[in-house]
Amino acid sequence: MGDIAAKGAHELFQGIVQGSRPHLSRAISHVENGARGAAELLSHAYKARKGALITGITGSPGVGKSTLVDGIVRELRKAGHTVGVLAVDPSSPFTGGAILGDRVRMGQGHALDEGVFFRSLATRGHLGGLSRHTGDVIALLDAFGFDHIVVETVGAGQSEVDIMRYAHTVVVVLAPGLGDDMQAIKAGILEIGDIFCVNKADLPGAERTRRDIEMMLDMKEPAGWRPPVTQAIAVNGQGLPELVSEIFRHQSYLVASDTLKEKNRWSYKAVLEEYLRLLTVGKVLELASRDGGLDAALDDLMQGKAGPMEVALKLLQKYWA
Amino acid sequence: MGDIAAKGAHELFQGIVQGSRPHLSRAISHVENGARGAAELLSHAYKARKGALITGITGSPGVGKSTLVDGIVRELRKAGHTVGVLAVDPSSPFTGGAILGDRVRMGQGHALDEGVFFRSLATRGHLGGLSRHTGDVIALLDAFGFDHIVVETVGAGQSEVDIMRYAHTVVVVLAPGLGDDMQAIKAGILEIGDIFCVNKADLPGAERTRRDIEMMLDMKEPAGWRPPVTQAIAVNGQGLPELVSEIFRHQSYLVASDTLKEKNRWSYKAVLEEYLRLLTVGKVLELASRDGGLDAALDDLMQGKAGPMEVALKLLQKYWA
Repeated sequence: MGDIAAKGAHELFQGIVQGSRPHLSRAISHVENGARGAAELLSHAYKARKGALITGITGSPGVGKSTLVDGIVRELRKAGHTVGVLAVDPSSPFTGGAILGDRVRMGQGHALDEGVFFRSLATRGHLGGLSRHTGDVIALLDAFGFDHIVVETVGAGQSEVDIMRYAHTVVVVLAPGLGDDMQAIKAGILEIGDIFCVNKADLPGAERTRRDIEMMLDMKEPAGWRPPVTQAIAVNGQGLPELVSEIFRHQSYLVASDTLKEKNRWSYKAVLEEYLRLLTVGKVLELASRDGGLDAALDDLMQGKAGPMEVALKLLQKYWA
Repeated sequence: MGDIAAKGAHELFQGIVQGSRPHLSRAISHVENGARGAAELLSHAYKARKGALITGITGSPGVGKSTLVDGIVRELRKAGHTVGVLAVDPSSPFTGGAILGDRVRMGQGHALDEGVFFRSLATRGHLGGLSRHTGDVIALLDAFGFDHIVVETVGAGQSEVDIMRYAHTVVVVLAPGLGDDMQAIKAGILEIGDIFCVNKADLPGAERTRRDIEMMLDMKEPAGWRPPVTQAIAVNGQGLPELVSEIFRHQSYLVASDTLKEKNRWSYKAVLEEYLRLLTVGKVLELASRDGGLDAALDDLMQGKAGPMEVALKLLQKYWA
């Protein structure tokens, strides 16, 4: 299970580009588990990317993201697009398991549709917001050939910033009634949303929430793209055609304004940073925990014998050849 | 402003350990801005840590964290403790500015109290959840000598996991009425909370929220500490003495069970990882962006000429001496 060298990374890759879903599933698991041979598989996959359009869906817990994603997938299918969905769940740093639940229910609605693929990724307590495999799994889905990839993050805050690095279009989902922290939330999300969607628009306060966001957008320096603020009731599908048409409109804008390439470049930089981190910090920590060097370093820090900069430099000197 | 070498890192440090708040403020700004000399200052500060008890407060936007933190500070002051408060705000990756607002109002309530110190940190679009300066600023506050340090993160998801690494006690704040995503939220936060607090307990559903959490805690493997689930109405101070007494009880438990040291060790490991990342990934990216090496690497990735592993290895070979 933890070794794909025998099975052959190339064979797995061939299966993926030929559209085999079992191969895709297995490949994602291998990448998640850090199996041997995964690096070779990913090297193939990155080089074979087909240029899917990537939409990120983010927002606080409770705003109804899962239902909304479900509806977006339905609309994309109606338009004839194939869709890969990646849900990045906050998960226990101890168990490392993804939270299913909603996700399972959602996947089942499309279970018989060959044009849709659902997958949950655990964040595994990684220090970098999204799962550190997010970029890699997107590359696999892209090599497989989905027209559209939808990445959903659970949670607000840093993951919203992270999602920008992989998505062409970021949809920020809100719901009415979050009260007086509204100002703070909006200031934080204002910069990252290409589209805003006020979900649960049948609840009181929806119109006010919409107006509040419009007002804050009005105060921003005008740029090329003015983020639209849509309303939806995801549970009955209301507003979803409009939302998806705004997603398409944003993606046309990116192509027309030549900013799609820029976005891709930025996302590759995020991938590169992650690989560099693994190769350096990951490697040093691994080596240093094998022979007690890390324990000694932590002892020095605990006892105030040295500051973190000195300790880090010493570790690098010793474990980085 | 961006250089403390002239002013003298040692002088600044002396001011801090002698309890000068202007020196502390200036030192934090220097650390946030990455001023020259900050490394030396921090080296002093880490070695002079006094062992403050660190409480992390986290929860989704809208649950009323700021008001609750305000109340906690009031209770800690009543008990005679000095308190440093660090609020880590989600902020624009473009402007890098912290969101004030609530924070300003809150700070003003304690403006004349020399025993309280408030500070906001921007996350600055850093890829690592909390601001990458969180650990360093905690070290400065600790060297200053506050009895208690309270770290508040805005947002749910990854930042909740990150906060664990710096806090001895994590308080997860909830509010009733987050609806059907409750299950998912709880699964994500269950592992990280040492104490749960259902705020806005006067709203309908508060008792159900409390029971839901208790039930999920019941299903967990019993460990040494059973997280209490408290209720509060932060706006009128109700439930705050109980909450703070639970914080004290947890911290006594940590000392008695000898897990405080373990927690400190884990938090030093997070600090060390951050320093290693800066010294390796940070350095390589900086050097490579100076002479066009990074651009060439991103071109290769964009054109599918090489996978990220090959590109990362090449960069390391070239820029890491």
